[in-house]
Amino acid sequence: MDKNNSSENQEQEEQVVNPWEVSAKGKIDYDKLIEKFGCQRLDQSIIDRVARLTGRPPHVFLRRAVFFAHRDFNEILDAYERGEKFYLYTGRGPSSEALHLGHLVPFMFTKYLQDAFKVPLVIQLTDDEKCMWKNLTVEESQRLARENAKDIIACGFDISKTFIFSDFDYVGGSFYKNMVKIAKCVTYNKVVGIFGFTGEDHIGKVSFPPVQAAPSFPSSFPHLFTGKDNLRCLIPCAIDQDPYFRMTRDVAPRLGYHKPALIESLFFPALQGETGKMSASDPNSAIYVTDSGKDIKNKINKYAFSGGQDSVENHRKYGANLEVDIPIKYLGFFLEDDAELEYIRTEYGAGRMLTGEVKKRLTEILTEMVERHRRARAAVTDEMVDAFMAVRPLPNMFN
Amino acid sequence: MDKNNSSENQEQEEQVVNPWEVSAKGKIDYDKLIEKFGCQRLDQSIIDRVARLTGRPPHVFLRRAVFFAHRDFNEILDAYERGEKFYLYTGRGPSSEALHLGHLVPFMFTKYLQDAFKVPLVIQLTDDEKCMWKNLTVEESQRLARENAKDIIACGFDISKTFIFSDFDYVGGSFYKNMVKIAKCVTYNKVVGIFGFTGEDHIGKVSFPPVQAAPSFPSSFPHLFTGKDNLRCLIPCAIDQDPYFRMTRDVAPRLGYHKPALIESLFFPALQGETGKMSASDPNSAIYVTDSGKDIKNKINKYAFSGGQDSVENHRKYGANLEVDIPIKYLGFFLEDDAELEYIRTEYGAGRMLTGEVKKRLTEILTEMVERHRRARAAVTDEMVDAFMAVRPLPNMFN
Repeated sequence: MDKNNSSENQEQEEQVVNPWEVSAKGKIDYDKLIEKFGCQRLDQSIIDRVARLTGRPPHVFLRRAVFFAHRDFNEILDAYERGEKFYLYTGRGPSSEALHLGHLVPFMFTKYLQDAFKVPLVIQLTDDEKCMWKNLTVEESQRLARENAKDIIACGFDISKTFIFSDFDYVGGSFYKNMVKIAKCVTYNKVVGIFGFTGEDHIGKVSFPPVQAAPSFPSSFPHLFTGKDNLRCLIPCAIDQDPYFRMTRDVAPRLGYHKPALIESLFFPALQGETGKMSASDPNSAIYVTDSGKDIKNKINKYAFSGGQDSVENHRKYGANLEVDIPIKYLGFFLEDDAELEYIRTEYGAGRMLTGEVKKRLTEILTEMVERHRRARAAVTDEMVDAFMAVRPLPNMFN
Repeated sequence: MDKNNSSENQEQEEQVVNPWEVSAKGKIDYDKLIEKFGCQRLDQSIIDRVARLTGRPPHVFLRRAVFFAHRDFNEILDAYERGEKFYLYTGRGPSSEALHLGHLVPFMFTKYLQDAFKVPLVIQLTDDEKCMWKNLTVEESQRLARENAKDIIACGFDISKTFIFSDFDYVGGSFYKNMVKIAKCVTYNKVVGIFGFTGEDHIGKVSFPPVQAAPSFPSSFPHLFTGKDNLRCLIPCAIDQDPYFRMTRDVAPRLGYHKPALIESLFFPALQGETGKMSASDPNSAIYVTDSGKDIKNKINKYAFSGGQDSVENHRKYGANLEVDIPIKYLGFFLEDDAELEYIRTEYGAGRMLTGEVKKRLTEILTEMVERHRRARAAVTDEMVDAFMAVRPLPNMFN
C-alpha cells in the first residue's frame, strides 16, 4: 500500500465521500475534500468571467457557491473565449422511481450551462451500474432509467442539443472501444486506491469505472462528434463523482484526448441536517418531486432541522443558528431573490423572524417548484423520451 | 488464500496452463490437467455414441483423442437424442495475421460438428482481448479479426448456420446485458483464483472474462435465439480455455441458463517438441497457412524434432522413439487413413522406415492441406466476410 492509499484510508475514518457513500461524523468538510481530491475552489473571478462570457447573470448555484469546486473550468472558458465550443456531460444512476430535490440540482445547473453557452449535452443513465450495485434486475434498471429520463427532460433541456442514453442501450461500438482503451490504462491497484473496492466485490464493479469515463471523450459519440476529437468536455456533477473523473483525467493524455473539465457541487443536505447526502431508504429525509403540497408542508414542519431556539423567548433573545438551519440551507438553493434571502437571514438570525415563518416561506417555494416540475413531467410523453434517446445527429447543437 | 488457490499455485510450478500461457518443464501432463480443472476424459463409449447419433464415422480428432476431454458432452448428446438441438460456440483471439496449423484444429473440428449435428454456430473474434493483452491498437485488432475471419470461413462453414462476430462490433444490447449479469456473479478474488491476475494488471483484463462467457448463453444472440433461452451450448476449444468456462458454468444456474458443455483438445505441439503450444514470436516453431511448399519442406526437415536415432545403423537397430517424434504427432492430427498411420508407426518404430521418409510423407500431407486452405481462403471475398458477420436471423440453422 503506497503513501497515497494509506493517507486516503486515514481520511476515511473522519469522512467518507465516494460515489456510493457520503458520510461524516459532523458536517462534510469541503475544504478537506478539495484538498484530498486535488480540485480547486471556484472563486469569484471565474464566476464574473462566466457572467461576462455568457452575457447573463450567474446562476444562483454559482452565486451561492452550490457549485463550489472545479477542475480546469478556466481552460474551458479560455477555449470558449477563443471561439471554441465544448460539450456538457452529466448523468444519473437510476436507482429509484422518484427523484428528490438533490437529484434536480445538477440538472437545473446543467440546463443553465446549456442555455448560457449554447452547447450540446450528453446525459448518461447508468442503468448497468445500478443493476450491479443495487442488485436490481436489468429490466427494472432500464425501467427506472426511462422514468428518470422523464424527470430529466422535465427540467427543460433543448432536444436539438441533448442526447440522453442508457448504458444498457448504448454501450457498444465506439463507446465500447473507448471503454477498452480506458481500461487498458488503469490497474486494479489504481481502482482500489480510488474507489476502495475489495477482493470480495464482484468484477462488475471493477469493470464499471471505464463506462462512466467513456462519455468524457467525444469519440464515444460518433453520431454527434465525428471529426471533433479535440472537443473539450465539461462535467457538472456533485463532488462525490470526482473519483471517476480523476481516473479519467489521468488516462486522457495517454489516449490523445483533452482531460475533461469539472464543475462540482456540494451535497444537497437531508432534512434532518447537513451530515451528508439524503438517504434513499428514508423517504422522510428528502422532498421528492412526487410529493404533494401537503407532504412538503408536513415534511418541512416535522423534519427540517431548525437552528431556531427552543422557546420563543430564547429565540427572540439569541436568534437562530443559521449554520445548522436546514430551511435556510434549502432557501440558499432555491430562493432566487438575493435580497429576500439576505432579509430572511438577517431577521431570522437576529431572532425577529421565527422558524415557523421561514418554514412557511420555504414550503411555498418548494411547493411551487415541485408543482411546476410535476406539470412539466406530466407533459413528457413516451415519444419525447424516445426522441431524446434516439441515436441521431444534432445538426444545430452549437448554434 | 484458500486451499484451492494454494494448491493451484503449487501445480503452477510444474506446468502452467491458462488462456495466455502454456508451459511445462517436460511434456504437458494432460491427466493432471483433467484432474486439476475437474473435467472428464472423453471415452470410447461417447465416441461410439457420437457415431451412432450422427450416422457418420467419428472425426479423426475424436478417433485419435485430439479432443480428449469434456464437460457434460453426454448431456448434449442426451438432449440431442431426445430431439433437442443445441448450438456451437467457438472463437479466436486475433493476435496475428496468419494462422498456424494449431489454430485450424478447433475450426476443423467445429466444422465437423456443425455438419454432423446440423446445428448453428457462433464464432467470437476477441479483438478487444487482443487489443488489451497484446497492446494492439483497436484498429489493428479489428483488421486482424477480419483477416482471421477469412481463414475461418475458408474452413468451410455453412453460412446459413454460422454467425461470426467481433467483440468491438458486437458488444452491446443483449450481449452487454449478459456481460453485466455474469460480472455481478463473479468476485475479484474468484477471477484471481481462476486466472491469476495481480493488482498491477489493468482492469481491462479483470473485465474481460464475462465477454468470453456471454456467448455461452443463447440470449446474447437475440437475432438468432429469441425465445430459445433453454437452448444448450457446446463449446469446442483447446483445454487452455477451460478456465473461462469453469467460471461460466459456475454462474449459469444463477442466471437460469444451462451450463455450457465443452469438448476440449490437446495443444498442437511446436515443431521443436511437445512441451507446450507454439510460440507466435518464433515463426520456425510452427507451420503457417501462408507457408509455401518450400517453407513447409524446409521447416519439417530442419526443425521437426525427430525420435529417430542419430545414425542409420542405430536407427535400424533401435527404431524411432515415437513418443517424442513430432512428424508422427503431426501425422496423428492430419493423416486421416488409420491403416497408413499404423503402418508408418510400426515401420518407423521398428527402424525399418527412416526419419526422412516420414518427414517426406508429412511434407506431402501438409503441403496439400495448406494449398487447399490457401485456395479456399483466396476465394473468400470481403463481401463474404460481411455476410458471415452480418447481424441477421438464420432461419434454416437447425435443418
